[in-house]
Order: sequence, then C-alpha cells, then structure tokens
Amino acid sequence: MTRITDVEIHDLRFPTSKTADGSDAMNQDADYSAAYVVLVTDEQVQGGTLRGHGFTFTIGRGNELCAQAAGLYAERLIGLDLDSVVDDLGGVYRMLTSDSQLRWLGPEKGVVHLALAAVMNAAWDLAARRAGKPLWRYLAELDSKTLVDALDLRYLSDELTRDQALAMLRASEPLRAARIAELDAAGGYPCYTTSAGWLGYDDDKMVRLLREAVDEGYRHVKLKVGRDLAEDRRRVALARQTVGPDIKLMIDANQMWDVPEAIDWVRELQEYDLHWIEEPTSPDDVLGHAAIRRGVAPTGVATGEHGMNRVLFKQLLQAEAIDFCQIDSARLASINEILPVYLMAAGRGIPVCPHAGGVGLCELVQHLSIFDYVAITGTTEDRITEYVDHLHEHFTDPCIVESARYRMPQLPGYSAQIFADSIATYRFPEGTYWVADAS
Amino acid sequence: MTRITDVEIHDLRFPTSKTADGSDAMNQDADYSAAYVVLVTDEQVQGGTLRGHGFTFTIGRGNELCAQAAGLYAERLIGLDLDSVVDDLGGVYRMLTSDSQLRWLGPEKGVVHLALAAVMNAAWDLAARRAGKPLWRYLAELDSKTLVDALDLRYLSDELTRDQALAMLRASEPLRAARIAELDAAGGYPCYTTSAGWLGYDDDKMVRLLREAVDEGYRHVKLKVGRDLAEDRRRVALARQTVGPDIKLMIDANQMWDVPEAIDWVRELQEYDLHWIEEPTSPDDVLGHAAIRRGVAPTGVATGEHGMNRVLFKQLLQAEAIDFCQIDSARLASINEILPVYLMAAGRGIPVCPHAGGVGLCELVQHLSIFDYVAITGTTEDRITEYVDHLHEHFTDPCIVESARYRMPQLPGYSAQIFADSIATYRFPEGTYWVADAS
Repeated sequence: MTRITDVEIHDLRFPTSKTADGSDAMNQDADYSAAYVVLVTDEQVQGGTLRGHGFTFTIGRGNELCAQAAGLYAERLIGLDLDSVVDDLGGVYRMLTSDSQLRWLGPEKGVVHLALAAVMNAAWDLAARRAGKPLWRYLAELDSKTLVDALDLRYLSDELTRDQALAMLRASEPLRAARIAELDAAGGYPCYTTSAGWLGYDDDKMVRLLREAVDEGYRHVKLKVGRDLAEDRRRVALARQTVGPDIKLMIDANQMWDVPEAIDWVRELQEYDLHWIEEPTSPDDVLGHAAIRRGVAPTGVATGEHGMNRVLFKQLLQAEAIDFCQIDSARLASINEILPVYLMAAGRGIPVCPHAGGVGLCELVQHLSIFDYVAITGTTEDRITEYVDHLHEHFTDPCIVESARYRMPQLPGYSAQIFADSIATYRFPEGTYWVADAS
Repeated sequence: MTRITDVEIHDLRFPTSKTADGSDAMNQDADYSAAYVVLVTDEQVQGGTLRGHGFTFTIGRGNELCAQAAGLYAERLIGLDLDSVVDDLGGVYRMLTSDSQLRWLGPEKGVVHLALAAVMNAAWDLAARRAGKPLWRYLAELDSKTLVDALDLRYLSDELTRDQALAMLRASEPLRAARIAELDAAGGYPCYTTSAGWLGYDDDKMVRLLREAVDEGYRHVKLKVGRDLAEDRRRVALARQTVGPDIKLMIDANQMWDVPEAIDWVRELQEYDLHWIEEPTSPDDVLGHAAIRRGVAPTGVATGEHGMNRVLFKQLLQAEAIDFCQIDSARLASINEILPVYLMAAGRGIPVCPHAGGVGLCELVQHLSIFDYVAITGTTEDRITEYVDHLHEHFTDPCIVESARYRMPQLPGYSAQIFADSIATYRFPEGTYWVADAS
C-alpha cells in the first residue's frame, strides 16, 4: 500500500507589478502569486516518488493566508491510502468541506475556498498522473458514475440534479473518441488574447501587440477599460481601427461600476462593435448583471473570474444575467465544483469561456475547455478560452498556443507543476529574488 | 497631536464545544472565537491611554487567519493622526478596502472581510470612546452628512443613492430625542432567545429552558432543526406545547437544505405555527431564498448571519427573498457597511433582526438595533434582536438583558472590550486555558 506521506506548501510571488503587466482599473500593482501545494506520496515512479501539484492564484499580499489555509486542509490528507484518495476524490472533497470551523470563514468563498481549490487541484493532478494521462483525458475516460460521485451538487438540485448530470455525461460517451480526434485535427482549442490591452500600456505598445495578435491568427482581442470614459473611447476606437471590422473586440471593466453607470458607460462605447463587456460591476451582483445585460444588449455580458462558488453561477444562469460564463480554475474548488458549473451552463446553452492568465491559469483551463468539448457540449461555437503570454516558463509542462489555439496537453497530470528553480527563486519572502529585492 | 501608535491582535478561543452550546445541524463542535483588535493611541485618558477595541467572530480553527489578516489591515493605521482617523472613518475604510491585493482574496467576503470588520469595529469603538458616548448615541448625534460620508454605498446606487441615504437620516433628526426617551422608558430594545434550542440539548433541558424563557418575559423563542425530519417534528411539537400558542416560535436550519428540500421540510413543520425559517439553504442563494419564501408562506424567511456583504443584502431585498434581515455585526464591515443595509431594508419595509450570540455579538448588535429605532425606522414592530446567554462575563461592559429587552448601553464605545484576564486565559494557543488543555 502507498500513502500520501507529506505536503509541501509554497507562497510563490512573481514581481509582475514592475512591468505593468496585468494592470487594470481595479488592480494596478498586481504581483502574480500562487499558493502552491505539493502532495507527496511514497509511490515509486520513474525518477522518484509520485507527487501531485496544484495551486490557487492571487495577486500578492495575503497569498500567505491562502498558503496557510491550504496547509490546514492538506495536512488532513497525510497518511491516507493513495488508492482511497484517487478513487474517491468526492469523498476527499467532502471530508475537507465538512470542517465546519473552516467553513464558517466563508462559507465556500474567499481565502478558505481559494485554499480548497489549491489542494483539490493538487489531488486531481495526482490522480491523473497516477493514471498516466493528461487530466482532460483522465476525466474523459473516467466512468460517468464515478465522475458524478466526485461532483459537489449541494445547493444545485433546483437547477441540476444528480440524475441530470449523469445523463448529460452518459450521452456523450459514445461521441468522445471522435471529438478528441476532431479537436486534435483542428490544432486544439481556440483562445483569445488579453496581452495587448492592459491599462498600463501606452498606445504604441497596444497597437503593436494588437497587430501581432491578428497576425498570429487571433480572432478575438480584449481591452481593459473603466478608469476614464474619454480615454476609453479613444483607446477602444484605436483598437477597432487597428484590428479592422472582422475581429471580435471585448472590453473588461474589472468591477469598476455601479449598475446604472455600467449601462451608461458601455452604451458610450458600443459604436465600436463590442462582443462582450466583462466584469461590469460587483461579481456578487447577480441581479445587477441581469439589469446590465438588458441595458447593453446586443453587447454580451461576461463575468465569473471572481465568481465565488457554484451557487453564484447557478443564479447567474437562472437570472439570465450572463452571455458568457467565465469560471476561474483556481477560485472554484477544482473539478469537483467546476464541472457542475459547466453542466449547468450547458443546460442553459451558455458558453463557458474560462478566465485565465495570472500565473498558471492557462495551464489549467486548457484541460477544462477540452473536456467541455469532448464530454459536454461538442462545440466550440462562441467558446473561447483566455490566453495571456506570461510566466509559462516556470511550468514543467507549459501550455502551447499556436495559431490562436491551445494544443492538447499530452503529459500526465493537470500541467500544474512549477520548476524547483522557480520555487527557489520566487518563494516569498525567502526566495533568492525577494532576498535580493529587499537588500 | 495624538496618534495611533500601535495595534494589538489576539486570537481568542473559548472552549464552547465541550458543552454543546452552539451546536446545530451544520456546526457541531464550535469553539466560539474572536480575532480581536486593539488600536492603541498616545492620547491620555483617565487610567491610561485611549484604546479602541473590536473583533470578528469565528468558531475555532482558522481564527488565526482572520487575526493575521486583521493585522495586515490594522498596521496601516499606525502613525495616523487620531483626529484624522475618527473624523473620517469613511476615508479610513476606503484606504483599507482599496488594497487591491487583499481585495483579490474576497473580494469583500470571507477571511479578508471578516478581518476588515474587526479593524473597523475597533475604529468605531475608538471614535465613540473618544467622544465619551456609547456608539448608538455617538452615531445618533453625528451630523447626517458626516455619517453618510462614512458609508460604503459602492454598488448600491440602483437601490440606494447617497441622496436617498442622506434624506432618510435627515428626516429622523428632529425625532431622535423623543425616540431615545421612549425606548429607555420601555426598558430597552426587545430581544428573543436561542439559548433553549440547540440541537445538542436533550428534551428535558430544552423544555426547562423554554419555560424559563417564557417566565422571563420572552415572546419569541428559536429552535435549531435540519438534521432529521422526524426528530424535528417531535421537538418542534414539544416546544409548541411547552410555550403555548401565543409565543412566536422560530426555527433555524443553518443552511442544511437544497431549495426543494427546504420547501418540503418546512411544510412538514408548519402546523406548529412558525414565525420564520432561518437559513434554510446556502446563504449565497438569493434566488433560492425567494423560491423558498414563495413556497413556505405564511412562514417567514430569515437569513443574513452569513450574508457576506452589502451587495448580497441588496439583492435579497430586490428579489423579495426575505421577510427578516439578519445582518451580522462581525461579518459585514462594521458601521460603514451595516448602516447601508439598514437603510436599504427600511426602504423596502423589511425589519432588520440582527444575528447575535457567539462571543460578543450581543454586545455589538444592541447598539445597531437602538440606532435603527432612533435614527431610521422609529418602530420595534416585527423587530427583535437575538440574544444568547453565553460568554458575556468576558466583557468589561456586557450587555444587560432584563424582561426580554436589551437595556440601553451607557458607557462610551461599542461595548467590545474584553478583560485582560480573559485574553490571558483564552489566547490561542498560548493562553493559560489552552496550555493546560494541551498538557
């Protein structure tokens, strides 16, 4: 018998604030960070022992809180039989979420939920590695009943019952092999880029990056807005002029507005043919997003990167508040909570276009999008996954984007492993980068 | 000039799990805890220097996360001029909430928001102490424009504008002195008791405590439900039989149910004439509460103790999802965020019946309820504040409940100060109680 023998927790911070990468109206000095979890086992594999890697994403200060909370969860896994863990990730999830003292601190939101995401991401990575498959394939080849048993359907039965979830997954079983072949032949899963549109970039840099994006094959680009209306009109006009009429242009306000203000502001920009307005207001405001959606049609409403849990997404769908559902792979509590959102969205015909960027989110979401195509919806229509060209060099199995598509990952796991050298350099505050920075 | 010179942060935990006080269907081993903040100044007052005391409430493990996060916020206040702090608590609040890196960890929910509540509670305590008034009177005598400037109205303008908030407060100004006299003459603000109905208590204890409650003058009592339907029917029937037909009986499910299950379960108990069902499902599920309310009328729906922020309450009101609004004084970010919820509720005619109990929550909410009467609604109709007879002995200015009413606090501040001896005993893990417990 093999066991989980130890956990390692690392507070990793990358000094992205120094280049204005990632700057938007709400977040002007983000240091992309990961509360990073390694589940260590005593199972021998080529080159050492089997380990599962996972993380949640934050933007700097407070990352230590997520790391500590992840430690509180992960330590409960030490000593568990590895078979019992990977064969029952629903049971592991329920064991961790049934800690009522930690639950009080959310419930199911904020620091403790981000920490749960980190730990469960590592657990799913572990399961897929042990099976020798990339996570998207591991999930696609898992028995549907086993997969449904792993899902957190609590509080969802007025929108998605267990039977409905099982039926949706079973229906795709005979179609999956062909869909995998189709997606592979197409070059992978389509994506869009946010790399051009950060608020901190000047016009020349924005125009150059937009041109490069179109040349690389992107059909969708996104700009940050929300700090100044006149400036936004100028930048959005310049962007539309740069990319021409055939490229879809999205804007992202990062929660800057109240509901009436959002409607007014977006209407002032609509002449430039906007595909969606992202995060127009508080991520918690389901009814507010519904009002904005009615107010800015035909511009679509997108939100979700700060969507705290599956109950919030259930309501966004029930209230017909969104046109695009942007789940975050490190804010929702991993596969257990993410797949129910995908299933609910599919039931309502709303495309899931995952949030990515940050550090490592692109590595994770490629698996989710591919699984969505293979096992849930079978379409990429109106579905595009975010891609930001930052920090991939720290990952042992980085995502590869070519011709505006994520190539299908082939190595075992959830693509979440960070190089030991990167950990040694960017661990906060004792990593070599931060020690040098402080001196 | 005097300044905030230091902050003290204490992780205090009381071993309440050993007596089943506080046990309910979701939370079976709560150790009532406080992440406790002291803002230290160099202003000389009788007996030493002026200090502001505040806390947030948790139920055990993870309290250290709130304490640490409170430290991240509170340390930013060190060195600030005391005048500038107490005269502009809106500015202090905005300074703290504009930390975008900490904001990412919510936003405005979970550990970082609980921590903000602790720090701002201490800041309001400091302001009231410095003015030599109990907080309810300090607020009631504050200029309405100054008070509105302190409120966090962001994301609320589709329900409550700044002008509306100001008009509501100004309208009550001429009425306040008479209302204070009325409430004082009535013996204070009415409350109900939860002390009888914890799930961990046996029938004899429940019946005895219910009889005592009625004898003490309570007109409302509350029972925990949600673990077993047959058992709930038996206990609710016994409680109704014990208190007779004229006492209002409330039940509290502590989030145990999905939406359809909540409707079915409450209908099975309705024959015992229930005043409200509290926390029937996920606290995040605005639309779910609205569906439950339609499904269980005329039983009222109450929720809010886990209501994460003002945006959630705005939606509960807009969706007509609740009959009773149960804000929590340590989960919302203090007066800055709580009063906007009171104003929105008043605008919709929904009574606010604050959650209390835990440790110190009764001490805080008495100030809020009194302010509601004096400066917002001028009525106690359908308004009752929770009271639980636990842990008051640790407070230097404990709430006093007589004949089922909170007597109006008279000492300066927010009644939030805990005795030094209690801190030395229950500080975790180094307090004398915990050291002895571990040995």
